[in-house]
Amino acid sequence: MSEQVFAEVSEEALLKIFTLPEAPDSTLGKIEKDLSENLMGFLGEHIVAREKPLHEIEHNFAASEVPEQPRYVSDHTEFLLNNLVAHSVHTSSPRFIGHMTSALPYFLLPLAKLMVGLNQNLVKIETSKAFTPLERNVLGMLHHLVYQQDASFYQRWMHSAQHSLGAMCSGGTVANITALWVARNLLLKPAQGFAGVAAEGLAAGLQHYGYKRLTIMVSERGHYSLSKAADVLGIGRQNLVGVPTDDRNRIRIDKLREACEKVAADGGRVLAIVGVGGTTETGHIDPLNELADYAAEIGAHFHVDAAWGGATLMSDKYRHLLDGVERADSVTIDAHKQMYVPMGAGMVLFRDPSMVRAIEHHAEYVIRHGSKDLGAHTMEGSRPGMAMLVYSALHVMGRRGYELLIDKSIDKAKQFAELIAAQDDFELVTAPELCLLTYRFVPQQVKVALAQANPEQVKRLTPHLNAITRFIQKRQRETGRSFVSRTKLNPAQYHREPTVVFRVVLANPLTTTEMLQEVLEEQREIAAQAMSLRGALHTEMRELGLLARS
Amino acid sequence: MSEQVFAEVSEEALLKIFTLPEAPDSTLGKIEKDLSENLMGFLGEHIVAREKPLHEIEHNFAASEVPEQPRYVSDHTEFLLNNLVAHSVHTSSPRFIGHMTSALPYFLLPLAKLMVGLNQNLVKIETSKAFTPLERNVLGMLHHLVYQQDASFYQRWMHSAQHSLGAMCSGGTVANITALWVARNLLLKPAQGFAGVAAEGLAAGLQHYGYKRLTIMVSERGHYSLSKAADVLGIGRQNLVGVPTDDRNRIRIDKLREACEKVAADGGRVLAIVGVGGTTETGHIDPLNELADYAAEIGAHFHVDAAWGGATLMSDKYRHLLDGVERADSVTIDAHKQMYVPMGAGMVLFRDPSMVRAIEHHAEYVIRHGSKDLGAHTMEGSRPGMAMLVYSALHVMGRRGYELLIDKSIDKAKQFAELIAAQDDFELVTAPELCLLTYRFVPQQVKVALAQANPEQVKRLTPHLNAITRFIQKRQRETGRSFVSRTKLNPAQYHREPTVVFRVVLANPLTTTEMLQEVLEEQREIAAQAMSLRGALHTEMRELGLLARS
Repeated sequence: MSEQVFAEVSEEALLKIFTLPEAPDSTLGKIEKDLSENLMGFLGEHIVAREKPLHEIEHNFAASEVPEQPRYVSDHTEFLLNNLVAHSVHTSSPRFIGHMTSALPYFLLPLAKLMVGLNQNLVKIETSKAFTPLERNVLGMLHHLVYQQDASFYQRWMHSAQHSLGAMCSGGTVANITALWVARNLLLKPAQGFAGVAAEGLAAGLQHYGYKRLTIMVSERGHYSLSKAADVLGIGRQNLVGVPTDDRNRIRIDKLREACEKVAADGGRVLAIVGVGGTTETGHIDPLNELADYAAEIGAHFHVDAAWGGATLMSDKYRHLLDGVERADSVTIDAHKQMYVPMGAGMVLFRDPSMVRAIEHHAEYVIRHGSKDLGAHTMEGSRPGMAMLVYSALHVMGRRGYELLIDKSIDKAKQFAELIAAQDDFELVTAPELCLLTYRFVPQQVKVALAQANPEQVKRLTPHLNAITRFIQKRQRETGRSFVSRTKLNPAQYHREPTVVFRVVLANPLTTTEMLQEVLEEQREIAAQAMSLRGALHTEMRELGLLARS
Repeated sequence: MSEQVFAEVSEEALLKIFTLPEAPDSTLGKIEKDLSENLMGFLGEHIVAREKPLHEIEHNFAASEVPEQPRYVSDHTEFLLNNLVAHSVHTSSPRFIGHMTSALPYFLLPLAKLMVGLNQNLVKIETSKAFTPLERNVLGMLHHLVYQQDASFYQRWMHSAQHSLGAMCSGGTVANITALWVARNLLLKPAQGFAGVAAEGLAAGLQHYGYKRLTIMVSERGHYSLSKAADVLGIGRQNLVGVPTDDRNRIRIDKLREACEKVAADGGRVLAIVGVGGTTETGHIDPLNELADYAAEIGAHFHVDAAWGGATLMSDKYRHLLDGVERADSVTIDAHKQMYVPMGAGMVLFRDPSMVRAIEHHAEYVIRHGSKDLGAHTMEGSRPGMAMLVYSALHVMGRRGYELLIDKSIDKAKQFAELIAAQDDFELVTAPELCLLTYRFVPQQVKVALAQANPEQVKRLTPHLNAITRFIQKRQRETGRSFVSRTKLNPAQYHREPTVVFRVVLANPLTTTEMLQEVLEEQREIAAQAMSLRGALHTEMRELGLLARS
């Protein structure tokens, strides 16, 4: 009904969009119904498979002025369906196994709508009321998942105004920045004759404590958000030190020690050691206990970036992979990754609930002293009540539900790894520890040759293989039946040559083994079309004398 | 249907929540229907009016462990309705005029559900596709609203990979931090023998350029997020300099000049001057043109925090209030404030599309060099497709629709100001420039006395009046019929004595004059109950010899 009444500018018409609901038989009403009754069907029907070139999509989003006149809701919705939804990414498709986004449980959609309708602002109690204790509760549960303190601990701290077990935020990047912000402010804390880095700034802090620079240490496979953090916090990207990894993409403690000693010898100070709890590219986990030991030894903040791997703590079977995470000073976990919550549910947790005092802020009109306003201890100000969706997911699925999803995803990754290893013309590059793995296409003949190639030969062959992998990944994505992502690694088995690989994340519970077989089949078909790239590879092989006599 | 099938842990049961929709007659199905058909009715029915004490609400959110077993969706939903929704804040009520959140247009709710169902991640094209040009389009339209460049400008820059007209983010705080991050990195940019602050850090930057410190200048009424920004960026809160304001809460240019000269004389460098485009507390706007002149004179970055006031640019009638904003290097605008979009739609805009190069980040697996991935130029990483809601609101309401809403809101504020001024026992403290105003309750006798009181007498009376204002505001909020917020100002007319005031924001288009009258009536009734506070005020009056002879 209302959708036809607007599109004229009068106060009366305008008020109607605030007071008259969309009719069930309106375009939007029908969309809602479709979403509610058959989300996958809706997405499958409306998202076109074959990829439209970006520059063509841009044509539809080229107007530079806010449109002068209003538009009918129905017309606008049609536009969105044809030009936005049609060319969005089917992130929940079980054949799209290249992202960390997955299918969502149905019940979260109506709850998300409820959240938007309530439109709470979590910065302060005044605009969020019960959402504030709810968010603190979610942080408490996640804190317990990591740190497993007893009930009295949570009774004491969970709802304490001056404390916080963590902070919810839009995503892992803000979570990592927040953790390192806290670490920086704690290290350069107020002291005799110094008001602290929060008040006086970083240069004054370094000077007061006599440090030439601060550094953040992380493996070479650390997430790029740490580089943003180093930049934002004034530490400098050069002072984010990338430590070499072993053949399973885990930080090498001997190299870490070497690097930290060098920092100290040069008059610097290690601010933080960051352990990776599931690298974004391969899902490998650093030796967290060893990192905790070493961080304690040199008095550095120990942060674990478990944005991806954190959910694994729900599994009795695989929890041990993250042993040592409970010794971290702070931990990042994204609920919108393997906790199956929609985008926008990042979290950082703090072992010690008083740590957040280091970043406490107050104002007259909000987050007054003594209030329980969440805004006092978060980097963000106004933000939505996403905590409700995390809370609901935790309750409806329960720890045992999550455990099952996580165990199944890791098992599936192991099966896929076996499947790949069994192919003549594919090669597993990194085996799954969590539900991530990487692999590439290598023609059988080349595979045989590579096994006995010397470093120089590997160096010359790799760019050709990289080009073929890139070609396959791009073409497969454009075709739109399935999607794997790609990245570049430096595998030990290939003498650290930069190697382009397919990257697969098997978090979607709806992905079947048949679908995985089809992904390989399609890649093989595309590879067969890469005539000129394969020709170049063949020529290189011949020049290297690696062609089997035929 | 599905809501009854879960609550047992088997793979089959678990998969059902991903594949079986909620039945229309389920608890969640009914909620959806209610939300779709009668949002205000739903909120009015489910949010209890009388406020429940926070500590009682906390009892329901005290469990510290992730529940072990799954729970029926219906049971969980009932729990949410009774314990969360019931005690949330009715932010869209037209009688709740103390927040910057307002009623939402109906069409945004189903669209929000669509956005969640699509679950795009805007960090990269790979997980957002058409959402990326759409977001760039929204930034372009807002950029045009502020800077009004010609079509060729937008054609050239809007979709350019290496450029960005701004950044969307969760809210104004992140927007302000991003703007100042860019400013800091531009000032301490790479030069001969220096790789730039982004790479080497803040201390090295200050040393290279020979500055003792950086400062950010803003009026005393600047938003507290700037203090967070100064802290996060390593500049230090003490280096956020609060400049005195005139009797309309606008920065005093003479005082600004004085403060900046002092910074320079001490070897510091003014990084940025921040103009306030609608103070949070009173809605006043700094003289932006004068600030632009002065910022240019001393070579400082000029940022305008128009988180609240930015939407006013839609109004031909009131746009002039922000004259000079088009000379800002960067501008913050929150679409979840007076642009009537749900929480989570902050934005920062940059005059020069190449400024964001100062904070550019890349990685192997996302935001590769040359890609149009938005994550290369934002502080946040993964984040949701909120831009779709802004885009839709801009199209369905159009500039002229917004103009009407904004004009009406300011007119309504002026009417309310007149209404207050006409009362014997209320007093307007700040008149509306935008749709914000502040006032307080002052018994008639005291009002008369105050008019001729000397500074010392004002000083002694004010705490009593403050206590009464606090009492009324708190009681009115608890009663739950209506809500105004409160803050503390230092009004020139009261010799800068800290004065507690009611703060009103009239953005909700559904608020009527009758409702405003009722708000005053209710406050008057509550004031009548504040016997002991009024007694103390009376005693003070007598001691001061201010009681009219009777």
